[in-house]
Amino acid sequence: MLDLQLDVPAGGGRREALETALRRSIRSGRLAPGAAIPSTRSLATDLGVSRSTVVAAYDQLVAEGYLSAARGSATRVASLRSPTTPDEDDDLFGPTPLHDFRPGEPAAGSFPRSRWLRSVRRVLNDAPDATLGYADPRGIDELRSALADHLRRTRTVVASRQAVHVVGGYGAGLGFLAETLRRRGVRRIAIEDPMLPMHVHTLRSAGLETVPIPLDADGIDVDLLCAADVAAVVVTPAHQYPTAITMSPRRRTEIIGWARDRDAWIIEDDYDGEFRYDRRPIGSLQGLGPDRVVYGGTVSKSLSPALRLGWLVVPEPLRGDLLAVINIRAGVSAVDQLALADFLQRGELDRHVRSMRGVYRRRNDDLRTLLARSAPWLDVGAGEAGLHLIANLRSAQLDEATVLAAADAASVGLLGLVTHHRSTAAGDGFAIGFSRPAEHHFAAALDRLGEVLSAL
Amino acid sequence: MLDLQLDVPAGGGRREALETALRRSIRSGRLAPGAAIPSTRSLATDLGVSRSTVVAAYDQLVAEGYLSAARGSATRVASLRSPTTPDEDDDLFGPTPLHDFRPGEPAAGSFPRSRWLRSVRRVLNDAPDATLGYADPRGIDELRSALADHLRRTRTVVASRQAVHVVGGYGAGLGFLAETLRRRGVRRIAIEDPMLPMHVHTLRSAGLETVPIPLDADGIDVDLLCAADVAAVVVTPAHQYPTAITMSPRRRTEIIGWARDRDAWIIEDDYDGEFRYDRRPIGSLQGLGPDRVVYGGTVSKSLSPALRLGWLVVPEPLRGDLLAVINIRAGVSAVDQLALADFLQRGELDRHVRSMRGVYRRRNDDLRTLLARSAPWLDVGAGEAGLHLIANLRSAQLDEATVLAAADAASVGLLGLVTHHRSTAAGDGFAIGFSRPAEHHFAAALDRLGEVLSAL
Repeated sequence: MLDLQLDVPAGGGRREALETALRRSIRSGRLAPGAAIPSTRSLATDLGVSRSTVVAAYDQLVAEGYLSAARGSATRVASLRSPTTPDEDDDLFGPTPLHDFRPGEPAAGSFPRSRWLRSVRRVLNDAPDATLGYADPRGIDELRSALADHLRRTRTVVASRQAVHVVGGYGAGLGFLAETLRRRGVRRIAIEDPMLPMHVHTLRSAGLETVPIPLDADGIDVDLLCAADVAAVVVTPAHQYPTAITMSPRRRTEIIGWARDRDAWIIEDDYDGEFRYDRRPIGSLQGLGPDRVVYGGTVSKSLSPALRLGWLVVPEPLRGDLLAVINIRAGVSAVDQLALADFLQRGELDRHVRSMRGVYRRRNDDLRTLLARSAPWLDVGAGEAGLHLIANLRSAQLDEATVLAAADAASVGLLGLVTHHRSTAAGDGFAIGFSRPAEHHFAAALDRLGEVLSAL
Repeated sequence: MLDLQLDVPAGGGRREALETALRRSIRSGRLAPGAAIPSTRSLATDLGVSRSTVVAAYDQLVAEGYLSAARGSATRVASLRSPTTPDEDDDLFGPTPLHDFRPGEPAAGSFPRSRWLRSVRRVLNDAPDATLGYADPRGIDELRSALADHLRRTRTVVASRQAVHVVGGYGAGLGFLAETLRRRGVRRIAIEDPMLPMHVHTLRSAGLETVPIPLDADGIDVDLLCAADVAAVVVTPAHQYPTAITMSPRRRTEIIGWARDRDAWIIEDDYDGEFRYDRRPIGSLQGLGPDRVVYGGTVSKSLSPALRLGWLVVPEPLRGDLLAVINIRAGVSAVDQLALADFLQRGELDRHVRSMRGVYRRRNDDLRTLLARSAPWLDVGAGEAGLHLIANLRSAQLDEATVLAAADAASVGLLGLVTHHRSTAAGDGFAIGFSRPAEHHFAAALDRLGEVLSAL
């Protein structure tokens, strides 16, 4: 007998109650795939409902795929699993190191979950119905305005609402920009050498030829940039990735001059510009040349990369082509956009960044202390900014691969720089992040790193 | 005198309290841009805190851009507004009609806000910290599995978790697919004629040549498709957009046969396949040919286009190239993905679709009744599915432009078909949506539409 554990309501809603009970039984496995269910007539009698109610419920569940009906035979519970091979593991990333000193993500556990939820709740309670339809592919006005205010205030960005485009992370924005430049006839784009390989790939995928330009202690070499035949460049002025160099004031003036002389475009990737520890804020490059610089930013370092929220601040001449590019695949949730606008307006992002700045400042200090003690054969770069530091090997006895293998054996995550270099014959070295471990685990992770390095 | 309305806590936290009070004063405008603030010494005396506390607070607010400090002069409140021109209106869409019968969006006010919020809350409470880092660009495992189950059950899709890719709306997915096909050497792709112009634009932007193929009452003409020299086609089998034709079973077999003969790819855009009103569910085309069909779907019609959540179910041979394309700009929030997984697992989407199906079924009936009465000069297509119907002009006295102008004058939104046709010399007509008006407004909107049509 079929035990449906069915509460048939006294009044209306019998069909729905029956459907719900059947669905629950099938989902839970109490009704097994392939099992015949009672005829409509007998179930109607059992339950004391009309036969048409049972027919309607069965029809509905057939339509939803819970039941299958073949003409002339009993209605059965459908096989929900398709006969394809079972799911294999197709993990792209491999295991995460237990002690993770790779750059790139905020501290595990630091995302302000309840405060973010408060913003989402506010949006879902208050947003007008019209905001839940198709939206402006450049972003929702509230967020564009809130970002313009925020970036003016915290990053000296010259921005109006119209200049701000919301994107699904800076990486998506860089792809859109590359296509935009390609449409405008740009063929060659300069990049810093070394540079994040994924972003090089993004530029090339859009059909641009990338021209690597070496760095010196002041940032990208603008003399070499002038000599290269390029119409655009991508730079990370606040905290070069991966070398951690901050572009000097003089170099900033020079590169803006280059762009103005050549009518060239500068893409400024300000991926971790919020984080400086020496109380000497370095403004954006865009603030010096809003006519030639596209500014790009993200919440990936300040809040979480899982939100996939970023922005571009775009000079007027590029906006039309950029809109044509993003229009066909705009893709940032309006709920998330409005939640971020609320989060900014209520000062939550400022508050969170300030608090994390304290955490990361201390970690930066502790990591430097540890490296000086455990690995005197590393030449640790200066730097009071960002979420990682640079350490070059100055020992002839050790190479990158040896250090990485030892770290890997101890489940210590480190990033070697060889894969980041394009043309420069630079020495071996590492970008050592200090942001990823959870706060309660950082000291232990640091100990483990120290053990690995001391043993080399 | 500076009135900071400051509660200096007895114990620690004085610096933070001072910063908060200053920030609040500046945001509220009580401290005007450019105003000098007291010296650190005098404020420290006023407040009874140490001077170093005030110095630290001022430094922090300088770093955040609230204050500006120039060597040798007083610290001032920063000008938050940049001197650019004020924001102009740059609305892309123009005003929304009061009575909106354009296709494409679910009913205003129908989004299940509190139930969606419940899923978001659950995610933010329960998701492991690791899910808040960078994620698999193909989507999060939980959602890919939940979608595979859901699509198998409700749309007869043959799907395993590995086949499912989460995308930021079907439009974004179509763009990725077009690039994927281009990488694999596809140069020409067939499209249904008529077809949504935006999607034609997406295909062309990826460098594909689009080849329009006419429809007959059974769907796309497969004889003409065979004659065209194409390696792929995009179709809307459940409910053709915009003609509302459902592809017949025989035509489905033919097109799968074509794809298998030619090793060609079929992209199935199942944009509103959840909505059938005749209790005779039409399965997906993909279920008949999972080896040659890429299935695409979305929550844009069932929940809200504002969420920007869609999916592709991809045959194994295409997955590698697709991953290379999406990898560089993956962009769907993990929180949203997990919320949708929860929403699916708890049966909320089924429940919501079932409820909206009742609403739309009645609207479809009411609209048909109204059109028969008010506009006998319209030839209304059959159809018990989707969120719009098709109505062709059979009067020689009226043309599309005349009807659209009259509707526009009454703030009634209608969509003419002329812009959707590529090659077919089809008659004038309209895609009339019945989903958009809020439920409480639908009867009034219908009345207004009736008045406009009757007067023609």
